[in-house]
Amino acid sequence: MKKNGNQALLPAGLQDLLMPAAAHEAEVVRRLIDCFSSEGYDRIKPPLLEFENALLSGAGETLSDQIFRLMDPSSHRMMGVRADITPQIARIAASRLQNAPRPLRLCYGGDVLQVTGSQLRPERQFTQVGGELIGVTEDAADAEVILAAVTALENVGVKDLSVDINLPTLVPAIAQELGIDKEAALELRVALDRKDAAEVEVLAGENGAYFLKLLNAAGTAQEVLDYAKGLEFKGIAKSEFDRLVNVVDLVTKAAPKLTITLDLVEHRGFEYHTGTSFIFFAKGVRGELGRGGRYDSVSVDNVTEPATGFTLFMDTVLRALPKPKIARRIFLPFATRREDGNALRAQGWVTISGLELVENDRAEALRLSCSHLIENGHIHELGNN
Amino acid sequence: MKKNGNQALLPAGLQDLLMPAAAHEAEVVRRLIDCFSSEGYDRIKPPLLEFENALLSGAGETLSDQIFRLMDPSSHRMMGVRADITPQIARIAASRLQNAPRPLRLCYGGDVLQVTGSQLRPERQFTQVGGELIGVTEDAADAEVILAAVTALENVGVKDLSVDINLPTLVPAIAQELGIDKEAALELRVALDRKDAAEVEVLAGENGAYFLKLLNAAGTAQEVLDYAKGLEFKGIAKSEFDRLVNVVDLVTKAAPKLTITLDLVEHRGFEYHTGTSFIFFAKGVRGELGRGGRYDSVSVDNVTEPATGFTLFMDTVLRALPKPKIARRIFLPFATRREDGNALRAQGWVTISGLELVENDRAEALRLSCSHLIENGHIHELGNN
Repeated sequence: MKKNGNQALLPAGLQDLLMPAAAHEAEVVRRLIDCFSSEGYDRIKPPLLEFENALLSGAGETLSDQIFRLMDPSSHRMMGVRADITPQIARIAASRLQNAPRPLRLCYGGDVLQVTGSQLRPERQFTQVGGELIGVTEDAADAEVILAAVTALENVGVKDLSVDINLPTLVPAIAQELGIDKEAALELRVALDRKDAAEVEVLAGENGAYFLKLLNAAGTAQEVLDYAKGLEFKGIAKSEFDRLVNVVDLVTKAAPKLTITLDLVEHRGFEYHTGTSFIFFAKGVRGELGRGGRYDSVSVDNVTEPATGFTLFMDTVLRALPKPKIARRIFLPFATRREDGNALRAQGWVTISGLELVENDRAEALRLSCSHLIENGHIHELGNN
Repeated sequence: MKKNGNQALLPAGLQDLLMPAAAHEAEVVRRLIDCFSSEGYDRIKPPLLEFENALLSGAGETLSDQIFRLMDPSSHRMMGVRADITPQIARIAASRLQNAPRPLRLCYGGDVLQVTGSQLRPERQFTQVGGELIGVTEDAADAEVILAAVTALENVGVKDLSVDINLPTLVPAIAQELGIDKEAALELRVALDRKDAAEVEVLAGENGAYFLKLLNAAGTAQEVLDYAKGLEFKGIAKSEFDRLVNVVDLVTKAAPKLTITLDLVEHRGFEYHTGTSFIFFAKGVRGELGRGGRYDSVSVDNVTEPATGFTLFMDTVLRALPKPKIARRIFLPFATRREDGNALRAQGWVTISGLELVENDRAEALRLSCSHLIENGHIHELGNN
């Protein structure tokens, strides 16, 4: 996936995928979705464009600045190009699929557009592939979506996968338990996210020692679970933590070789999450492969259901995979019978048909990047290719 | 592909594809593109959005009214959401792929948006799948794209396929040969398109008898080729017609069972075409499955190359296919081991995992539309499903 060589032709952050990147992306998307489908996640396809308010419902609210807006000449209402697919899934779950039995398993693969790229990620068009499990409160649901994503990523060839599991509801619950007011709790959360020990100590006041201890609750799953015994969670914090422990236990049992890390204070990017959340990484690959977690699926008309799900980011996923194999290309000299070509294609060859008589079929085959050609009815490999 | 049940939630002409339609569309797109790829058409993926002028180059000019426009906050230039993918292919062929050897074979599959639907076709979002063969003048190229599309459509299961081949350059060439001025020729072409014999006779004046004869040059390939002997084409008209005959001959030889019809006066929708053009139909299916033909691939910076290609319209293609088979769904009661599910999925089952202990696994399986369940390690078929 090289960047566009001629930037002036395309707006910043938009690019053409050429060969073989475009075919590779499509193939990987298909294999991921096949995997989700086999676990009962039914594929749906919302439109690229819909009324603005629907795109801004629930977690979509955070994307308000990122939506390209358009006036619909037919309804005179404001529309937006989707910047995320999850709010569309929530709309569909609450409308056309409101009577479908719960749990409702849905998956999708498609492109989204955002108004501005970031410095780290200049792209403005992304391919998202994801799954949502809607109408569920069980810990088994959280474990299922993590395992579904892990299985699919491993299936397409991602190596050294790890999942970082977070619990964005824990710090607010502890703060509430300790009687810290909302505003102070928010500041504290930001300092914890930054891992700024000095600031945490100042903001936490009499609870400084406790929050400093909490700050270190990050590492491998086993380390953190052992360490957390000393943190003595109470009330909601305890029940939230117990759920996390249960999810980690379910995931570990099903995928004993998976690297699981925990970070009990991480909160960034999980502002709308209501429980166990997670990010996927692959060793040596820059960026997140995907992320997800528990949330409230809120539709445009405010139907709310407990849900969990994940989104994979195809640009990072493709970076984590080996380069695609190039198919063997065989040159069919001009006037080769179509049935001969069909027979080769059925065997998996990519055929390149000559459209006119040329003096030297071998030279023509090489010029067209073929590795083989048909000569007198036989397949010949081209030497200097 | 049912229409949205709750129209108020989506703008007119936009719809959600649900299960199993979305999966079916994706599967058919994949199989079509696999077919084109096997004939050397490399998949590429241009972005959904680009600068307006690039979208309006060449044949894109006719779509000016159909493009949703957006201001790019980063470049302050006007962008548009693509209403057609062909102009994007022309841009790529002339820029990043300008040094790739010709003929250049490219294919694509993706969604386009149009500002207004028509009465016949209210949709504003379409899925296009197509192929372009760029840098070619040979008749074998015209035959190849027709055959590639036919093969792919038959491969995915379209029955009773026919191709209507047209030659939009013929009438202008005859008019020029007869010394009819441009404006009169244009009026005549419109009357011919409408098959309005009375009007044709009036407009053609002294050539009335000839054009009335031409008007009847439509029917099966053999009928029209026989009939055309009496039309005695001269000059450019003759050479254009000879090319058409050659293309028909090449297609007939390669696909002797294909129904081919010809219409020598049809011109509608081929305003930008420069030679043999065609439309695909399936018996009993409303609308065109796709269309294409010879054109000049004109990039935004006016690089021009002779080309031919086709676009398939997925909504019509899917209407021409039998309903997709629904995969067998098997219910895995709560706490079924993940490896047992993996084994079933590897055999092609869709598994639905129970997320909590229920009193009656069979009832739960039926509630979740499963046809089978695992009970004591064995697969049981559910009776009343």
